[in-house]
Amino acid sequence: MDVAHAIADRRSSVDALMGLAAADMAAADTLIRARLDSPIALIPALAEHLIGAGGKRVRPLVTVAAARLVNGKGDGYLKLAAAVEFIHTATLLHDDVVDGSELRRGKVAAHLIWGGASSVLVGDFLFARAFELMVESGSLHALDILARASRVIAEGEVLQLTRAHDLNLNVDTYLEIVAAKTAELFAAAAEAGAVVCGASAKRSAALRDYGMSLGLAFQLTDDALDYGGTSEVLGKNAGDDFREGKATLPLILAIQRTGSAETAFWEKVIGRRDQDENDFRRARELILSSGALQATQNQAQAYAEKAKAALGIFPADDWRLALEALADFAVSRPA
Amino acid sequence: MDVAHAIADRRSSVDALMGLAAADMAAADTLIRARLDSPIALIPALAEHLIGAGGKRVRPLVTVAAARLVNGKGDGYLKLAAAVEFIHTATLLHDDVVDGSELRRGKVAAHLIWGGASSVLVGDFLFARAFELMVESGSLHALDILARASRVIAEGEVLQLTRAHDLNLNVDTYLEIVAAKTAELFAAAAEAGAVVCGASAKRSAALRDYGMSLGLAFQLTDDALDYGGTSEVLGKNAGDDFREGKATLPLILAIQRTGSAETAFWEKVIGRRDQDENDFRRARELILSSGALQATQNQAQAYAEKAKAALGIFPADDWRLALEALADFAVSRPA
Repeated sequence: MDVAHAIADRRSSVDALMGLAAADMAAADTLIRARLDSPIALIPALAEHLIGAGGKRVRPLVTVAAARLVNGKGDGYLKLAAAVEFIHTATLLHDDVVDGSELRRGKVAAHLIWGGASSVLVGDFLFARAFELMVESGSLHALDILARASRVIAEGEVLQLTRAHDLNLNVDTYLEIVAAKTAELFAAAAEAGAVVCGASAKRSAALRDYGMSLGLAFQLTDDALDYGGTSEVLGKNAGDDFREGKATLPLILAIQRTGSAETAFWEKVIGRRDQDENDFRRARELILSSGALQATQNQAQAYAEKAKAALGIFPADDWRLALEALADFAVSRPA
Repeated sequence: MDVAHAIADRRSSVDALMGLAAADMAAADTLIRARLDSPIALIPALAEHLIGAGGKRVRPLVTVAAARLVNGKGDGYLKLAAAVEFIHTATLLHDDVVDGSELRRGKVAAHLIWGGASSVLVGDFLFARAFELMVESGSLHALDILARASRVIAEGEVLQLTRAHDLNLNVDTYLEIVAAKTAELFAAAAEAGAVVCGASAKRSAALRDYGMSLGLAFQLTDDALDYGGTSEVLGKNAGDDFREGKATLPLILAIQRTGSAETAFWEKVIGRRDQDENDFRRARELILSSGALQATQNQAQAYAEKAKAALGIFPADDWRLALEALADFAVSRPA
């Protein structure tokens, strides 16, 4: 089977997951739209700009699938799925202000339309709404998991902020940032979905492990895709991390592997963010030729395998197969 | 009894409240300091800058006093008292970024030292920590009250942001902003303190009413003090609201009462924020001569009376008397 077919296959497995979860995801979406409403008109306008722009809704999907895998009933997990999406959206709003990003989900970033102050405050609104939804789920344990995740995310963001342009960032610190900033919410989304449905500690912990590895696989794949992956065709947002001077895994590994010969180049383009058109091209060549890109993809693949292995304690029903397909999709999606 | 004696009397009543609550407040303070810690060094440094600067700790004091008034035991209310202070601190951090304020509690605002991004993210950390503390209190009902309050505060902030420099802001909208932005947290602090101790719905609601009126009394008094109150001596931060072009009650009433004769002046100094040294003096004269300042103080006094009246269902023990003294203090404190 060639690569295009393999990708098509994995995508259709994710389509199968979306099919399985369609009714739940529609219900979660209805809840999301109902709860982003407010008598203060700016709030739904700004929130809708971002939430309505789509996004993959992967995190609420993980909550739904985890709940279903443990035979969850009721609507507690739907409240948590909506809460997870609100936490994610709030962090995106604050992130874009912090990073000064110009685009989000193919649209102009909210803070460039309504101002940074509005993005900060609507982010706060969405955080608070998330906790209101969690209270409605009735599970203090699920609330504990998501409150802790929110705190860990903030810690990861601050750690990244203080180290983002550090040329000497090591792999362990980078993975610590990704685990906190990105993977923690996947882990909490899966664990809370199980916990609210009364799953055993063993099953809840397995789903937490699944989510953590899935989140790492997603983020490292994103990092690789920003340098075009191994494909000849670059994705439309390729180079964003580079232009923002972000130290991601492909860059960190390339800096280590190219050694003193390229120190001056990395200092210029990342350290001082002094870049022209050709610099991204050159960085990409170094990242490819040093094997840094392949190493990043291998690491992402290893996390996808780890995610699937964590599901080993569950019977191989449709939901387990669908979650396994999601892990494969995480590392094989196109740019 | 002359005014100086009356003020001294009320302050000593508040001292009595602080004495009654001393052990609880020391325990809450220990909890606050323990929970602002994080392995990410920037977080405790920034949080400590603000929390260590003191502030009156009125909100956690209200939680403690409400819990004690309903004969609360255990340490659930102490967790909530710390959570309330964290929510308050988080909103201050975000507020100062939103308003571009330069000073807070007599110190340089955190965002001017560590940058706006750090203030936004440490605010997020404190919000999340607040919810972790609430989970530890074990009361889903108290959590609901404080999650809702956090959402209402964000709505109030957005409403203020969109209307702050509106010369036609009416009194009702202004009071709506103050109720959401400031008084809601006082109300929730009192209600949650009672609820976590298992108080009846009637007692919890009475304490909520107390907190709401107390918060309004505090804020309107702050508004009046910004124009120097009726005292001859101006407080050291007098004029801050005016310089930021904030429509507060004394200003709104003065604009209404001075009519078309002063429209051009208000348009210039508030609408366009085109101010020189003499403009604050003139605004203050108009606010005094039109009776706007006295009307603001009367309104604050009325809220203080309403707060005390809400406590009528409780036996007149030390805690009730202390909470009454706090309401008196709210409207009689010096600049």
